[in-house]
Amino acid sequence: MSELTIWTLDWVPEGPRGFVRDLRLRWACEEAGLNYAVRTIPFDGRETNHLEHQPFGQVPFLKDGELELFESGAGLLHLARKSDKLMPRDPAGEAETLQWTIAALNSIEMVTVPWWFLKITRAENDDLTGWMGSRLDHLERVLGEQEWLAAGRFTVADLLMADVLRVSKVRAFGDRPATEAYVKRVTARPSFKKARADQIGHFEAADRKRAEQTSN
Amino acid sequence: MSELTIWTLDWVPEGPRGFVRDLRLRWACEEAGLNYAVRTIPFDGRETNHLEHQPFGQVPFLKDGELELFESGAGLLHLARKSDKLMPRDPAGEAETLQWTIAALNSIEMVTVPWWFLKITRAENDDLTGWMGSRLDHLERVLGEQEWLAAGRFTVADLLMADVLRVSKVRAFGDRPATEAYVKRVTARPSFKKARADQIGHFEAADRKRAEQTSN
Repeated sequence: MSELTIWTLDWVPEGPRGFVRDLRLRWACEEAGLNYAVRTIPFDGRETNHLEHQPFGQVPFLKDGELELFESGAGLLHLARKSDKLMPRDPAGEAETLQWTIAALNSIEMVTVPWWFLKITRAENDDLTGWMGSRLDHLERVLGEQEWLAAGRFTVADLLMADVLRVSKVRAFGDRPATEAYVKRVTARPSFKKARADQIGHFEAADRKRAEQTSN
Repeated sequence: MSELTIWTLDWVPEGPRGFVRDLRLRWACEEAGLNYAVRTIPFDGRETNHLEHQPFGQVPFLKDGELELFESGAGLLHLARKSDKLMPRDPAGEAETLQWTIAALNSIEMVTVPWWFLKITRAENDDLTGWMGSRLDHLERVLGEQEWLAAGRFTVADLLMADVLRVSKVRAFGDRPATEAYVKRVTARPSFKKARADQIGHFEAADRKRAEQTSN
């Protein structure tokens, strides 16, 4: 029996076939020569029928023995540790692979997917408001049930999620008390306060230096 | 001398102070009790004055001894390996932390940042076209100089970047021959072709099953 299971939908319309993100995990397993099984959740009711496995109602998620991960990017980095076909084992090669994997997710896809989304929905929806509301609602549910995102304790995942959410315009978008309390809790950490004060101090010092140069 | 160096800008206007992403790396170092230095590149000319360190002209990037990484998310995952304050060491805790870190970057920030960008630029720019063009131009330059993104060979970073880029609308957005050749090269791999054929076959089988159920 295969230890790796890729979960996807049992059916999708023709448009997304060949693009559903389970393909990323299938592809990685093929490259690495890893055995895997594919299992499915029903397309009908997909927005809520597997929230215990994927809190945003998306696919894929990956099962590896007892472990389970959602987010195709996380699945890829997890699989990459199993095979140097996906990521070299030397520190420099590993760092380069990591930075470009994250660049694909956060410097390129962060722009290309919303751009594409706006193009196809322009007729009914001229901005990303509905999409953002749905994502934040899912997160609100998660944060209503747990204090931290991962492992029952503060991790780098909380650091990053709180930093993404603390932008005032995003926080002001709808009344989400669990999310609000989460952002307050994470950003109450002395390490955050020090890092923020240090950054602001850094730029204030630059202001003073600029002012001196101008007055000279 | 500190082995860790966080690179940021020497100055920014008041608006982004406390939000420039070097803060994520400062915060992580503070949490983990890691010593670090902060160094700067000039704000003036920032779009092109450090492309050899950060191919999209952004900050921060992180230097760790001989290693250098861009993308704040990659820097965080790199730092997280140095301290269990940022990521537990047990496989389940590590997998959870990884999935939620990627969720912050790709399920939440992929929507919140473009949403915010549209809100502040609506007056002059009603979609993400300029932003996408700039990101893809930077990538075109990189791909004009190297065959693979990381480590001089195929890695999971190419798998993910090619999957992000192969969407036809994105590919048709401007003439970028190096990017086009890259997508063709990466998606010519037998593993991609098998994964894609398997996914399409999976959904075609679902179609046949649905048709049988309907005709019964």
